[in-house]
Amino acid sequence: MQILQQTFQVPYTYSIFFTKRLFDVANDTLRSFFGSFSQAGFQRKVLIAIDGGFLAHHPQLQEEINHYFSSLEDLVKLVPQLVVLPGGEAAKNDPALFDELVEAIDNYGIDRHSFVIGIGGGAILDLVGYAAAVSHRGVKHIRIPTTVLSQNDSGVGVKNGINYRGKKNFLGTFAPPVAVFNDLTFLQTLDDRDWRGGIAEAIKVALIKDQSFFEWIEVNAEALAQRNEEVMAYLIHRCAEMHVEHIRSGDPFEFGSSRPLDFGHWAAHKLEYLTDFQVRHGEAVAIGIALDCVYSVKVGKLTDAELQRILTVIQKLGFDLYHPKLAENDKINLRNGLQEFREHLGGRLTIMLLDRIGKGVEVHEMDANLIAESVDYLEGHYANLMVG
Amino acid sequence: MQILQQTFQVPYTYSIFFTKRLFDVANDTLRSFFGSFSQAGFQRKVLIAIDGGFLAHHPQLQEEINHYFSSLEDLVKLVPQLVVLPGGEAAKNDPALFDELVEAIDNYGIDRHSFVIGIGGGAILDLVGYAAAVSHRGVKHIRIPTTVLSQNDSGVGVKNGINYRGKKNFLGTFAPPVAVFNDLTFLQTLDDRDWRGGIAEAIKVALIKDQSFFEWIEVNAEALAQRNEEVMAYLIHRCAEMHVEHIRSGDPFEFGSSRPLDFGHWAAHKLEYLTDFQVRHGEAVAIGIALDCVYSVKVGKLTDAELQRILTVIQKLGFDLYHPKLAENDKINLRNGLQEFREHLGGRLTIMLLDRIGKGVEVHEMDANLIAESVDYLEGHYANLMVG
Repeated sequence: MQILQQTFQVPYTYSIFFTKRLFDVANDTLRSFFGSFSQAGFQRKVLIAIDGGFLAHHPQLQEEINHYFSSLEDLVKLVPQLVVLPGGEAAKNDPALFDELVEAIDNYGIDRHSFVIGIGGGAILDLVGYAAAVSHRGVKHIRIPTTVLSQNDSGVGVKNGINYRGKKNFLGTFAPPVAVFNDLTFLQTLDDRDWRGGIAEAIKVALIKDQSFFEWIEVNAEALAQRNEEVMAYLIHRCAEMHVEHIRSGDPFEFGSSRPLDFGHWAAHKLEYLTDFQVRHGEAVAIGIALDCVYSVKVGKLTDAELQRILTVIQKLGFDLYHPKLAENDKINLRNGLQEFREHLGGRLTIMLLDRIGKGVEVHEMDANLIAESVDYLEGHYANLMVG
Repeated sequence: MQILQQTFQVPYTYSIFFTKRLFDVANDTLRSFFGSFSQAGFQRKVLIAIDGGFLAHHPQLQEEINHYFSSLEDLVKLVPQLVVLPGGEAAKNDPALFDELVEAIDNYGIDRHSFVIGIGGGAILDLVGYAAAVSHRGVKHIRIPTTVLSQNDSGVGVKNGINYRGKKNFLGTFAPPVAVFNDLTFLQTLDDRDWRGGIAEAIKVALIKDQSFFEWIEVNAEALAQRNEEVMAYLIHRCAEMHVEHIRSGDPFEFGSSRPLDFGHWAAHKLEYLTDFQVRHGEAVAIGIALDCVYSVKVGKLTDAELQRILTVIQKLGFDLYHPKLAENDKINLRNGLQEFREHLGGRLTIMLLDRIGKGVEVHEMDANLIAESVDYLEGHYANLMVG
């Protein structure tokens, strides 16, 4: 028997730009980005797909975009259609939207040297990123996240995907964008729930990786709750930085058993689903973090004093710590959630718990009774609040 | 403005095993491969999708596979369903087959640590590879190519894909397999056209990269035409080796303007389409090579003596050098083919021509009149043959 061995490495590089008023012609961030791709002999095209909900809050945006790109005609050519998509998780459940994007890519002759830009929250970016990744085996994809959650977490990462038969992200790829543009001014029109939602991912990453960042969040919880933009700008930058670093230093495409940054996420995914996505991702993550912190205390890792600090900061930010769906069906649903989480990542169950604030620790099993006790603990906490 | 820079490399490695009677329990190639993935704590699953045409020629295969995997139960667990797919290019045109594969992956709980094996020709491997690549963002994919063409070319490479609205490979990804198993005995049931078809890719790679390999093909053309297995084994190994080397040393996922090994392919793709895939890929490539060799002489690169050697060896192998569809519609179709080829690869048009036997050279334009003259040349050659 003969064997040929194939081995190679594929290099990826992209920048995340933090800016304001991205489509103001006075802002040359996009111009200089496209300038770096300039090449004699052909003009690259740009197709933009945008979250309709976001567009409704920024009625002047379409004109601004057209104006901005008309000043870039020496570099790239914007195709005449703006693809407007319904925002939110529903976008990932509708295969017709994926088809619509692929057809637009085909109709406008977007090739592997052209760009597809997604503008919107995490769900839109996941959908647009997936369509871009599989068309022509990957056209160049640019992300312009418009929520805190997507600016500091999913939008700066390497994943995309859509749901399939109710299974979250069942279809997708690992496909880094060629650039991410985080515009702080886009956050002004977020409702309070979405403003707050993204902070959950910052708490998550701080808890498992960086005690001093957690302490910074404690100090600034009030300012964040009151929508202080400059404080939020720091939070997003630091969170994105840690997210990017985690991807770089780990196993970016998750071939092995190394895990993504998913503390608090196993219960969060299930809770989103059980509430038909009425509980939004960041809100669910806040509850999932609370649950896994209580569990961490019950298995003798985290101290109770640390737990109280964590629950306090989560509440100060305006998050709930509990949802009645957690306890429904005698916690059976939650146990299924653990199983589904294992299946999606594959292989052995691996769950991140907290050893202390700033240091996560992986475990390979969770005790169903202790999970139930942790749910009860949060329910009691919640009941006390209701009474208090 | 702040900028975060993300840079990382993703390592890929896989082996291509050349063996005989892969599913004979006496052959431990698969056993030792799966053994290398063994890990305490969970059992990996295996889902197999197979070309129905191939299976019809090997009626005992399903039992052999079940028997082989029953001896591997300490390592992996074969799911109870064998997914049988219609073979040939039609498989890539039918979105329902993609759905069927994704559903099987879902139903049997195939996760990112389990395996999907595709057994069949290039089209089946492209389809199965695509479904595997996008399910859970990539389950582990094994290719078992059953044609000369897939054993020496596409099957050992990094691409997958399906057709979309008549556009070849419009949807797909770059996703290396975790292993390729080339079983020489699988080629025995090929019809003569498919046995011959794969030799076109060997001629292609020899012409642009390796004069001595071309001379080896000249010497062995007779033996190849007479289906000498050991001669074919060398041809496949050498061709696969050069294909793998080209991927490794170049730009494996074609991010830049570097090209795949596509000499003779722009006209071949169009000819396949124009004949509704009655002309098979290898046959179309042989004609495409002939066309680009004639063109290379017309632009003063290749010598006429070299051209005659090339046309002779192509004919000796039993290929046609011409098809009437090439001349149809005043060659307009062929010009469109050039345009579509550019669009699929994107960016500037880049076509490989021959400088001499063993050395390709890239050009960025082709003259429509000279293409037409080249078609006429091959038509004349063909007419002479008919008379002769």
